[in-house]
Amino acid sequence: MSRNKNLYAVILVGGSGTRFWPLSRRAEPKQFLKIYGERSLFQQTLQRIRAKVDDKNIFIVTNRSYNKKVLEQMRGLRVPRSNILLEPQGKNTAPAIGWAAASIHRKNSNAVMAVFPSDHLILNQKVFVRCLQEAVRLAERGHLVTFGIVPTRLETGYGYFKTAAVAEAGKSFLRVIKFIEKPSRERAEKLLQEGNYFWNSGMFVWKTSVILNEFKRYQPVIYQLLYGKGAAAIVRIWSKLPAISIDYGILEKSHKVAAVAARNLQWSDVGSWQSLSEVLPKDARGNFFKGDVLNVGSQNTFVWGGTRLISTIGLKDLVIVDTCDALLICRVDQSQKVKDVVEGLKKQSSKIL
Amino acid sequence: MSRNKNLYAVILVGGSGTRFWPLSRRAEPKQFLKIYGERSLFQQTLQRIRAKVDDKNIFIVTNRSYNKKVLEQMRGLRVPRSNILLEPQGKNTAPAIGWAAASIHRKNSNAVMAVFPSDHLILNQKVFVRCLQEAVRLAERGHLVTFGIVPTRLETGYGYFKTAAVAEAGKSFLRVIKFIEKPSRERAEKLLQEGNYFWNSGMFVWKTSVILNEFKRYQPVIYQLLYGKGAAAIVRIWSKLPAISIDYGILEKSHKVAAVAARNLQWSDVGSWQSLSEVLPKDARGNFFKGDVLNVGSQNTFVWGGTRLISTIGLKDLVIVDTCDALLICRVDQSQKVKDVVEGLKKQSSKIL
Repeated sequence: MSRNKNLYAVILVGGSGTRFWPLSRRAEPKQFLKIYGERSLFQQTLQRIRAKVDDKNIFIVTNRSYNKKVLEQMRGLRVPRSNILLEPQGKNTAPAIGWAAASIHRKNSNAVMAVFPSDHLILNQKVFVRCLQEAVRLAERGHLVTFGIVPTRLETGYGYFKTAAVAEAGKSFLRVIKFIEKPSRERAEKLLQEGNYFWNSGMFVWKTSVILNEFKRYQPVIYQLLYGKGAAAIVRIWSKLPAISIDYGILEKSHKVAAVAARNLQWSDVGSWQSLSEVLPKDARGNFFKGDVLNVGSQNTFVWGGTRLISTIGLKDLVIVDTCDALLICRVDQSQKVKDVVEGLKKQSSKIL
Repeated sequence: MSRNKNLYAVILVGGSGTRFWPLSRRAEPKQFLKIYGERSLFQQTLQRIRAKVDDKNIFIVTNRSYNKKVLEQMRGLRVPRSNILLEPQGKNTAPAIGWAAASIHRKNSNAVMAVFPSDHLILNQKVFVRCLQEAVRLAERGHLVTFGIVPTRLETGYGYFKTAAVAEAGKSFLRVIKFIEKPSRERAEKLLQEGNYFWNSGMFVWKTSVILNEFKRYQPVIYQLLYGKGAAAIVRIWSKLPAISIDYGILEKSHKVAAVAARNLQWSDVGSWQSLSEVLPKDARGNFFKGDVLNVGSQNTFVWGGTRLISTIGLKDLVIVDTCDALLICRVDQSQKVKDVVEGLKKQSSKIL
């Protein structure tokens, strides 16, 4: 595919750094960290989309406190400063995406915009590009396209959606027919057995004209406050916007949602250590070791070392994260409980946050 | 019991610091570390015996490289410098004990000597004193007395001995009738089922006249080289002494061995993290936490923290030891494998040893 001048990317750089403690901290959320590889997750997101999107077509939605870090990590890229949209406060994803959509649409009414979180890890770039191409084709035909991840574990912290194969103009695609937000354990088990369910990755592709139309229909308040206004005006009225996710505010209501099945994307939302550990390359006994690790007979153990020697003996199904002032040792299937630790630290007014 | 002027204590301060890595190091063997409480294991050993033994009756057998540390940690005690016997090289326990026995016997031919390793932890001082008193009474009647520990786990790294209750002059005591050095797993299981077996603690009480007689009979080379000589002469001939343990060299051969059953002594040889963890006080879920530990739902977990925050989530049966330059995470029942780690580090010429 030659470069598509109508293709725009929007990267959402929000969120705070609690779920990935002790590596991420309040002042250092995970999108800015080198989780894996030589670049931060945000920089990897940029690199990924630059394969298909011109720098001048890249938009960033972030906030004032992250702006400096964003500029630092984008050094050398030709992304115009005016493409960086600074939210006065977090309002979840719908207002952020609506603002980006309106901004892009003013420049190019034929635009296709692809939305990406800045803090996900994707190791298979080939699959990513293939999925993006497929998503763009579907978007050009008027669909709101979401990237579906094939579930790899019983996960109750994600949103799921159900698909059905549909034929349109002689071509088959996946129509999204149901959304399930954070199912119970029992329900998640059923979804996995039933099949045709995907994890909602938070990566979307659509025409700006189509998504703005859906905003007009399902989120008229957001639409009216944002549409046709300049950045200065939007910043002034921002506090009036409802805080709502794009999934809940638009996608669950719209009849135009389609999916691409992102198989073998090697994707992680880096939302927990378990989620990260799944996507990283393992040795024959299922271990991942970073740093100076001396292991005796452990299996399925994930070690994120710092500067010290770490010796592991006879371990199984553990996550170990070593930083200069805090150490986490956690059963891999309980890594969601890191948030309980963070809550505990908040109560103690701990500095290690 | 009033103070017994004939009672002497010999503390063996040898051994290197590999089994208790990463807390103990080559340059810092565990007897000099504050493992538990405000004093080092060596200092606690001194304190324990000072309840019953005068400072001038305390003998130390150590080596030149530990001498400075020994003097430092004995500061304030009135132990004569001439009571510190410096082995030119390690020769196992028989020559060390033989030297001390001969030295004490020259001073007091009615002496009863009690031998203690310097690197064991004993939390129940009352039981210790009671056992010592009983052992002294048996020793005065001509027995070689060893402290027997009631086995608390299937341990293949220790020596065991079997006892039989015997009556002598109307009093019952335990005769040691068999020694088993480091049994196989299967054998150890049988011993535990059979009962009447104890762990050989390495703590002994006997009259110097009796043990010297047994040296003469079973270790005539050691006896002839040591007996009646001054320290300077002994240091010169030291290299000629056979390296042999008191257990193998004398006790397994002698017919005079008796035992005191040291029940509830809360004893650990601190030979492995498992051994230490067993003797320390636990919370209701079997955890021992030292340092700044934030726990979520772990059980039977032993954390030896340093200066950093340690968060444990959903762990079971683990030993975690955190030091400034090395971290050990180990299944509690595999803590003997720390020696494999130390071997591995030696091969790497690691500085963290």
